[in-house]
Amino acid sequence: MSLIKPRTLNGFRDYLPAAMIPRERLMETARAVFRSYGFAPIDTPTLEYLEVLTGKGSDETDRQIYRFEDNGGRQVGMRFDLTVPLARFAAQHIHQLGTPFKRYHIAPVWRGERPQAGRYREFMQCDFDTIGTQSVVADIEAVSVIDRLLSSIGFERFKIHVNNRCVLTELLSHLGLLDQSVAILRSLDKLAKIGREAVAQEMCDAAGISAQQADHVLKLAELQGDAESIFAALPEITGGSESAIEAIERLEAIYRGALAAGVPEQHLKIDVSIARGLDYYTGVIFETILDDLPSIGSVCSGGRYDNLAGLYTKQHLPGIGGSLGLDRLLAAMEQLEMLPGTSTPADVFIPFFDKSQRENYLRLAATLRDQGISSELYPDPKKLGVQLKYADAHGFPVALIAGGNEWDSGKIQIKLLDKKQSVDVNYRHDQPAELLAKLAQALGGEL
Amino acid sequence: MSLIKPRTLNGFRDYLPAAMIPRERLMETARAVFRSYGFAPIDTPTLEYLEVLTGKGSDETDRQIYRFEDNGGRQVGMRFDLTVPLARFAAQHIHQLGTPFKRYHIAPVWRGERPQAGRYREFMQCDFDTIGTQSVVADIEAVSVIDRLLSSIGFERFKIHVNNRCVLTELLSHLGLLDQSVAILRSLDKLAKIGREAVAQEMCDAAGISAQQADHVLKLAELQGDAESIFAALPEITGGSESAIEAIERLEAIYRGALAAGVPEQHLKIDVSIARGLDYYTGVIFETILDDLPSIGSVCSGGRYDNLAGLYTKQHLPGIGGSLGLDRLLAAMEQLEMLPGTSTPADVFIPFFDKSQRENYLRLAATLRDQGISSELYPDPKKLGVQLKYADAHGFPVALIAGGNEWDSGKIQIKLLDKKQSVDVNYRHDQPAELLAKLAQALGGEL
Repeated sequence: MSLIKPRTLNGFRDYLPAAMIPRERLMETARAVFRSYGFAPIDTPTLEYLEVLTGKGSDETDRQIYRFEDNGGRQVGMRFDLTVPLARFAAQHIHQLGTPFKRYHIAPVWRGERPQAGRYREFMQCDFDTIGTQSVVADIEAVSVIDRLLSSIGFERFKIHVNNRCVLTELLSHLGLLDQSVAILRSLDKLAKIGREAVAQEMCDAAGISAQQADHVLKLAELQGDAESIFAALPEITGGSESAIEAIERLEAIYRGALAAGVPEQHLKIDVSIARGLDYYTGVIFETILDDLPSIGSVCSGGRYDNLAGLYTKQHLPGIGGSLGLDRLLAAMEQLEMLPGTSTPADVFIPFFDKSQRENYLRLAATLRDQGISSELYPDPKKLGVQLKYADAHGFPVALIAGGNEWDSGKIQIKLLDKKQSVDVNYRHDQPAELLAKLAQALGGEL
Repeated sequence: MSLIKPRTLNGFRDYLPAAMIPRERLMETARAVFRSYGFAPIDTPTLEYLEVLTGKGSDETDRQIYRFEDNGGRQVGMRFDLTVPLARFAAQHIHQLGTPFKRYHIAPVWRGERPQAGRYREFMQCDFDTIGTQSVVADIEAVSVIDRLLSSIGFERFKIHVNNRCVLTELLSHLGLLDQSVAILRSLDKLAKIGREAVAQEMCDAAGISAQQADHVLKLAELQGDAESIFAALPEITGGSESAIEAIERLEAIYRGALAAGVPEQHLKIDVSIARGLDYYTGVIFETILDDLPSIGSVCSGGRYDNLAGLYTKQHLPGIGGSLGLDRLLAAMEQLEMLPGTSTPADVFIPFFDKSQRENYLRLAATLRDQGISSELYPDPKKLGVQLKYADAHGFPVALIAGGNEWDSGKIQIKLLDKKQSVDVNYRHDQPAELLAKLAQALGGEL
């Protein structure tokens, strides 16, 4: 029989342990943070009726949907994001769930786009949303969630850029440019990329506004400095109407609330230049930039929307949500050398080199696990060198070495694998205290 | 615009928080147990080349694969289990990973079978395997993993049924019935379901063996009693050839090793009647039955195989693995009332009923989270009754109530929601000790 070539489809990938361990850790950290705010997990099917998926998507997204006819003759598709399924889910279940409804959803999505460097056809999304409330508390909480997510993952140097879309809208209204807002905001979104002059030119060309008007819009977007000075400048720039003041006060309330909720000032940046697309968001919007890797773009973005599920229900469901960019964060962590690079989740390696003592090794490993210490026992009684090479290759920090003599004399050797240091300790199965104490030190990197 | 009907496909389902919270907890427990033995996580693509998937499956499985032609004209399919992807993965990467290779994989699979009660077209699989070793240590470890999985999930009363397929093979060889083994084992697998007489009759009819031979086979399968008495009886029944003794000794070694590894005797049952299918397993096999719900069948099964990836590589890869039945376990936990029935992952509910104190509430919630206490702040300053009804419906155990006066006087009320008890404690943001101490008690169910 000829062999089938083992290979993955273009745009798809296997996760080997060294890549999967930090990925899984990241997802667990995210889940723990979401839960600590009362966000609850949900899951939805991978396959949906195609009409459910295409109802909302843009033409471009529609083309990217993996779609087919199932055995029952139904047109089905694989979800391409978690927002459309959330909208369908909320329309279907909100009467049972009630509001406010806080959920997180970590799951893969699929897009048949042309694979590029770092872009895949299957990728994980990690979303959180609070639905059914317009409260500023939910806005503040979203900012606080992002801060705690990034901090818990291990980042210290980042900025959450916060804006209120309404501030931009008020400015455009003040300038009489509401009808051109789509073209203007599309240009504005390019500010960081192409610079002031090019944006101004594009605004004049594409939106047909005057150079003076473009200058005024850009003056707002370029407001820099600390939050207080921006808040002080905004009323005049936006015209100071009642609704403009309201939009500015909301932004201020979010900023002050985030500080009260423990977000450090250096993690917050009021940034009235960000617009985040054209029509979905209707209130607060945010992006998160790593100080040390601004070029990779936002690692957590989102904002407030007015009506989540209008395609599926007449019930008006406002909400606010964010999305953590798992793949981007992992790429960043790799570049910043924040990943351990091990391919085992266990801390302690136990070589097995005395066959007659099999049950002693098994019992030792169980004793460690009972104490919450993960430990791997090598299954075959090969030469110690072979086994320690395996341990090194996998990145175990510590080995516990016991041969026949050791078992007889009640001694075990603790070995720090990277430092090549070792120490002997007393051990019997019913008297593990000395081993456990010394092992705790060893796992802290000291002997 | 007419609304799109929000609905899921037949055979698929949404997981609402009350169902998803215990499901996620179960998966996290499984991951923690796997890791404690050094099993590492992997992931593989949802979509594979169809030829990779159909290479191994039976005709029945093949028919159930969700398959289609992708935009690049490739025939692709959605994985229907995690074993075929593991085989493909191992063939592709084992030169890089080395052996032994210990992995777990928790991921959904899809089968387009006719939906039945409790059967879905999308379901989660939870597999662990040790590849590249024939060591009995790996067999013992698999049994130990199952024991720790079930115990960690909260089960105390269960039995891991352990057999060695080789013992059955040796018996059939002894009786000169090796050629009829497929038909005989197929009948034998029905013993628990249809009883001795029907199985004996079927063996005679289908396999064409004598009543005496059927009786001999059944005598083995019906060996009952403690492990020692079974081990003592096996040599005679199986004929006692050298290879039969070897098979029996392996089974004994697994049993004694599992005891040494801490598996309680009452969780182990040597059961020479189980065969687990016809051709895949070649050594130890196991099934796990809950004492209180034997009717739902095995909740964790698996065994040893000789050659995992023969379709994709010439490299011989023996291994041993098991699969935890997540959906079955959750159904069992529901029946046995082991699920909490809450729809929030947070412990503490903070009503928000004094708008002017918004930042105090935010800071209180943050203080609790800093101490590892999950807490949800209601976003809208509605009437207290409305908010407490929300808290009740979600199953929060404890509420922390603070109105304007309380903030001024530095008092907070801790309320046990199910017992309608409450107590006032002193609290200031910079002096949270008294609140934290009393809250710990409250979360333990006492005030």
